[in-house]
Amino acid sequence: MGLFENEYGYFSDDGSEYIIKTPFTPRPWVNAISNGEYSFIVSQTGGGYSWRFSAGENRLTRSFQDIIEDRWGKYIYIRDNDTAQCWSLSYKPMCREPEHYEVHHGIGYTTFIQEYKGIESRWTLFAVPGQPLEIWRVKLINKSDRKRSLDLFTYMEWTLGNAPDEHREFHKLFIDTQYNNDINGFTVRKYMSDLANAKGQHSNRSWDYVAFHTSSLKPVSYDGDKESFIGMYCDEKNPKAVHDRVLARNVGRFGDAIASLQVSVNLEPYEQESLCFTLGCADNGEQAIVLAKRYNDTRECEAAFESMKNFWKPLLQNEIIRTPDKAMDFMTNTWLKYQAISCRIWGRAGYYQVSGGYGYRDQLQDSLIFLESAPEYTKERILIHAGKQHSDGTVLHWWMPLGNWGSITTCSDDLLWLPYVTENYIKETDDYSILDEVVPYYDGGEDTLYCHCVKAIERSFMRFSPRGIPLIGENDWNDGLNGIGLDMKGESFWVGEFLYAILTDFIPIMRLKADDILADKCVDVQSVLKENINKFGWDGQWYIQATTDWGDKIGSKDNKEGWIYLNPQTWAVISGIADEKRRKQCMDAVTEYLFKDCGTLLLYPAYSEPSEALGYISRYAPGLRENGGVYTHAATWAVVAYIMAGQPEKAYELYQKICPPNRSYDIDSYKVEPYVTPGNTDGPQSPNFGRGGWTWYSGSAQWLHRVAVQWILGIRPEKDGLLIAPAIPSAWDGFRYTRLFRGTIYDILINNNAHVNSGIKEIKLDDKKIDGNKLPDLRDGKCHKVEVIMG
Amino acid sequence: MGLFENEYGYFSDDGSEYIIKTPFTPRPWVNAISNGEYSFIVSQTGGGYSWRFSAGENRLTRSFQDIIEDRWGKYIYIRDNDTAQCWSLSYKPMCREPEHYEVHHGIGYTTFIQEYKGIESRWTLFAVPGQPLEIWRVKLINKSDRKRSLDLFTYMEWTLGNAPDEHREFHKLFIDTQYNNDINGFTVRKYMSDLANAKGQHSNRSWDYVAFHTSSLKPVSYDGDKESFIGMYCDEKNPKAVHDRVLARNVGRFGDAIASLQVSVNLEPYEQESLCFTLGCADNGEQAIVLAKRYNDTRECEAAFESMKNFWKPLLQNEIIRTPDKAMDFMTNTWLKYQAISCRIWGRAGYYQVSGGYGYRDQLQDSLIFLESAPEYTKERILIHAGKQHSDGTVLHWWMPLGNWGSITTCSDDLLWLPYVTENYIKETDDYSILDEVVPYYDGGEDTLYCHCVKAIERSFMRFSPRGIPLIGENDWNDGLNGIGLDMKGESFWVGEFLYAILTDFIPIMRLKADDILADKCVDVQSVLKENINKFGWDGQWYIQATTDWGDKIGSKDNKEGWIYLNPQTWAVISGIADEKRRKQCMDAVTEYLFKDCGTLLLYPAYSEPSEALGYISRYAPGLRENGGVYTHAATWAVVAYIMAGQPEKAYELYQKICPPNRSYDIDSYKVEPYVTPGNTDGPQSPNFGRGGWTWYSGSAQWLHRVAVQWILGIRPEKDGLLIAPAIPSAWDGFRYTRLFRGTIYDILINNNAHVNSGIKEIKLDDKKIDGNKLPDLRDGKCHKVEVIMG
Repeated sequence: MGLFENEYGYFSDDGSEYIIKTPFTPRPWVNAISNGEYSFIVSQTGGGYSWRFSAGENRLTRSFQDIIEDRWGKYIYIRDNDTAQCWSLSYKPMCREPEHYEVHHGIGYTTFIQEYKGIESRWTLFAVPGQPLEIWRVKLINKSDRKRSLDLFTYMEWTLGNAPDEHREFHKLFIDTQYNNDINGFTVRKYMSDLANAKGQHSNRSWDYVAFHTSSLKPVSYDGDKESFIGMYCDEKNPKAVHDRVLARNVGRFGDAIASLQVSVNLEPYEQESLCFTLGCADNGEQAIVLAKRYNDTRECEAAFESMKNFWKPLLQNEIIRTPDKAMDFMTNTWLKYQAISCRIWGRAGYYQVSGGYGYRDQLQDSLIFLESAPEYTKERILIHAGKQHSDGTVLHWWMPLGNWGSITTCSDDLLWLPYVTENYIKETDDYSILDEVVPYYDGGEDTLYCHCVKAIERSFMRFSPRGIPLIGENDWNDGLNGIGLDMKGESFWVGEFLYAILTDFIPIMRLKADDILADKCVDVQSVLKENINKFGWDGQWYIQATTDWGDKIGSKDNKEGWIYLNPQTWAVISGIADEKRRKQCMDAVTEYLFKDCGTLLLYPAYSEPSEALGYISRYAPGLRENGGVYTHAATWAVVAYIMAGQPEKAYELYQKICPPNRSYDIDSYKVEPYVTPGNTDGPQSPNFGRGGWTWYSGSAQWLHRVAVQWILGIRPEKDGLLIAPAIPSAWDGFRYTRLFRGTIYDILINNNAHVNSGIKEIKLDDKKIDGNKLPDLRDGKCHKVEVIMG
Repeated sequence: MGLFENEYGYFSDDGSEYIIKTPFTPRPWVNAISNGEYSFIVSQTGGGYSWRFSAGENRLTRSFQDIIEDRWGKYIYIRDNDTAQCWSLSYKPMCREPEHYEVHHGIGYTTFIQEYKGIESRWTLFAVPGQPLEIWRVKLINKSDRKRSLDLFTYMEWTLGNAPDEHREFHKLFIDTQYNNDINGFTVRKYMSDLANAKGQHSNRSWDYVAFHTSSLKPVSYDGDKESFIGMYCDEKNPKAVHDRVLARNVGRFGDAIASLQVSVNLEPYEQESLCFTLGCADNGEQAIVLAKRYNDTRECEAAFESMKNFWKPLLQNEIIRTPDKAMDFMTNTWLKYQAISCRIWGRAGYYQVSGGYGYRDQLQDSLIFLESAPEYTKERILIHAGKQHSDGTVLHWWMPLGNWGSITTCSDDLLWLPYVTENYIKETDDYSILDEVVPYYDGGEDTLYCHCVKAIERSFMRFSPRGIPLIGENDWNDGLNGIGLDMKGESFWVGEFLYAILTDFIPIMRLKADDILADKCVDVQSVLKENINKFGWDGQWYIQATTDWGDKIGSKDNKEGWIYLNPQTWAVISGIADEKRRKQCMDAVTEYLFKDCGTLLLYPAYSEPSEALGYISRYAPGLRENGGVYTHAATWAVVAYIMAGQPEKAYELYQKICPPNRSYDIDSYKVEPYVTPGNTDGPQSPNFGRGGWTWYSGSAQWLHRVAVQWILGIRPEKDGLLIAPAIPSAWDGFRYTRLFRGTIYDILINNNAHVNSGIKEIKLDDKKIDGNKLPDLRDGKCHKVEVIMG
């Protein structure tokens, strides 16, 4: 048995690969035509989004300028010329039943392994670090005792920019495919871009790049037109050109632009051959030729594969945990980092969200994933997001990097994530110089990052209700609660708690900056917040979420539905707003009403009727997504809150429920891939209770990583060192945590033979006992052994 | 042989139906999954847009709020329960080869006739006049000598608003399907609309309607979910539910919303049965129930079919021509009216343009189609478009009727179509009262239509170059020429000609309104225009199209490409700007450079390189669409210009080349359906020279009708009567034209035994000779016989 094995797949021993063992997996029906990759939802269907093979941010990883119609798939067909039998190197599109079938999803690559009619094929897709290039490496092995004459045909549909499918008939008119014999393949241009030109005109600008698709073997033929390749009345499942072994060589500006290269491979019995294809997107024709020529070489592609693996190593391996919980290890060491970095930050696309836009608070939070491994990436994101702040302190809710346009709202928490993430960056790195970085405002002018952060805080001070609670505005973190505060009267207790927490951390920075007047003011605001939230926000057994413009409570026992919300409880605890008694009360309410078999619900009971007054949260079916489902992002905060409320076993129980590999065993109801987090899971009011939804593109990945290492393992940075404060299940014998901290490696071995949850009896640093439970900030660039005895 | 028969289809004797006789037609590849209708491009593929069955403007005919994903098709599957064989009532999606196959495209309906395995099926789709309802009428005939047990399964995918396909995964979450046993079918709601709510919020509003799909027979089962209907790893071609004969009865808010109704039909040998289904969109649940119950009755549906036919009659039959040219007859009497009314005005969608928006000048011109049959519809459109004018005289370039938002540009001709069409309406109806209708401005305030028209003219006076030529601004009629005039310096000679023509017609209206100061001013402007266009716009052998902001000529012999444009020649003639000599010269240039086998090119030679300076016209491949193709709309004006330049044979030769039925004989290169006009045909620089493009949604339909009756047949309204001025081919023996004019029928028989092109020898009205060549405005509501002898 493999690890977390079910009838569809399993993890490799070190958790760095997920192996699918059958073409048939329990994914829900989705609209797109599947491409060839078989795992679970995304990889089966929306599949193949380039971020899955990302190696640094480049134009292959940004969906907004996707170069091919990845949603429809990219295929390699194969034809046995002696028997005229055709199949594909992935199950789809031809859907032959292979004799042997495996798909390996690894970090930066996917490999399809098949055996069909005596031919073993291995098709690996990956991106090349630092280059706008994807490589398809193919190995064919003749396992039969007869000579084989095989033809391979690649296939994909060009897009070259962002054009909704119903506009394809217009946009395809502007694509120009050219075959270049020198590079064994195509260069492709588009004479219309979805972006405006310098004069603000749409439809009068060319796409800024040159796409290419080439082969290591000299093609025997090619086609650039869908009509001739697919054939009249045929489809991708049975393209005429493959069956007939005739590619029409149509190129130019008059077709429906695709790329297909036909190469021939002859194999003696038991002989094997390797070849490769490129798919790339260059700045111009010359660069396309240089790149294609370089990577039309199987040895160069092997080297690129190794360099891709090396590229990912520091991002993953600067922090390694070894615990009794394999699910936690696999997700923390590998998959959550990969998900957050490749999909959330670089790709910004999932099957369900394809825009490629940045969310203000989304990618800021996501960037915390880099702190242990490469904090310079976090810094880069902080400065980029600071530049999307207006000089009045408000920020773009989201923006599109190409064209640089975005959405202005009165959302009440967006802006506060800038000081939050900045303070977390400083806590990790002790790099206060970031505060002096000068960053422009989105509407002109510039200021230091410190001033940007202060502006955000001061702007939020301007949006208080007369009784001293922050206004919710168009929405708070809960986007769907967007009907209650438009008149700028409704309040958000959650925003109050969040602001309180930020002030706690940011006041010391203000003092350091000798900004004492502001710091003193913030101390006053904190005292007001604490008093008023406890006075007006306490509902008897828990905190309410909000009030409406017309004075109703939201998340109160007085409500017909939505009695209790998760976030105001967890953040009352996290922020320190709640005293000891209320901590217990409100987390007990969470346990009683919200804690279900698949995690903690965002609210309960779900809203059964759509209500414009409440907002679009009520438009989801009851039990779905924010409306009474488990919203994974928020559920991770509940893990922290349970720990802070002194319930580490409960915290770990919750962690286990939302940690994906554990869902391998109820996969027929969970239905999605067990190696990335889902955005949500259906709640008990849904007929699909326990079904995962919208995997990959979820802000929960970074947070699930963070709650594991900083709160369950309990090892977190403070100004003067690394705090050791585990809150682990008492059943554990201990764990090991090796991490980089300010350039120095701490290899920490925790012994819990005492079988407690928390408490440190002894710490030895390099075999010497130290006082307290904090490792000093050594900063000597060396590796230090740390032994901790709990008790 | 049928009329205009080729291997794929033919016209019925009276031209009112086009009959497809094989599933295999030469349509180009298109991206969408075909629905079941087989004719040419649109009907095969994008197929089934509801306007094809429109009967008055209602929410079924407006694509912008399409209720189903029509692009993916609507199907009826059939299953023989004794043999388990399945097929579909149209060739697609199951693609069985029928023993007999016909599709009849008629006015307001399409019927699929098939015989397969001894079962004849006839499936007719049509819309009910005045009701937001489409009916599918099905007749099954058992032609075998065994008893047959058959099940039918309907299938379609709900959309309920406008959601691009990549957003389906989000939008489907808000659709709620319910099965109602009382109405034998579904009611379906959506809790999110693509429109903003009253507070300007998107995503927080419900779709305003209730959709329904019901059956005359009590269904034995049903399904509302795509996953269970199609089945894992299956597709529309082979849905699991049909093969298994099991519908899962999934409804509610958690599926991927479709509708499928399963009904059983048992037929004795040679027995037949009729049934019907509804597909509708009501204002609320109660109305949905009332409508469904009423039309769940085959007799009611028969009556509705008759009423649909009666609905179309006056729109088509108030004007009938009988000429020696069957192609002209079929198109003029039937198809051009149907195309302009159903697709352009009511549907506003084609396979390639799906928005449902109104173009300011587009639907204004289209509305001229109603003048002979129902001018009140023209009036309605004029007043609607007047309401999209700002108080400064500028207009929205296009707008969306739902949500009422649109595009503001500096396009230079849009605004002038208001006085143009208004004057044409008055010329037809003599109804000057329209000028006193009070219409609001788009930005507030209101005024009479007369003042709206004057504002348009005066606004265009404010956009002249210092040498007295109108500025082109963002573009003129030629949208793609949008790079040359953004700085408001480039000139458009075509706009000058168009303005000149409008002034000629509108000055008398100004005088009538005692607006003599303005009228005098307009006379001055005309003299300036005539002089300056002839001075600065004459290129030696033809008129140039425009100048650029930086002073270059466009459409001049000095240009490297695009030496000559069509419109400045045709409108120099139509407007009267050109004197007799230059008329001949410029139309000879048209003949020499632009007149090709498939009509007159818009310009020659095509631009070979995309140029931002020129505009997006240069982004099309050379020979495609505006860039050196035949743009049908503009080609119709060349017919008029040839006639006015005294070349009626040339005019008719051109008319024949662009009249669709004539393309039946080169259908393998033309490729599109021969009963509607295409927007364009590839020019000689395209490798697909002669290929039709973008049929149905083309402003050319109305114009092709107009040039036939008003200019070739030459019978056109003037203030005081109906002018008889034919410009027919001399080979004709004559023709007959019966039309309504101001409530009175004129049945005009033209005798051309003299075999001339033009010239009237004698006119008898009700057997009495009259002087001149104008029929008096009798307005007695009777029918008058007119005999005309040419000579």
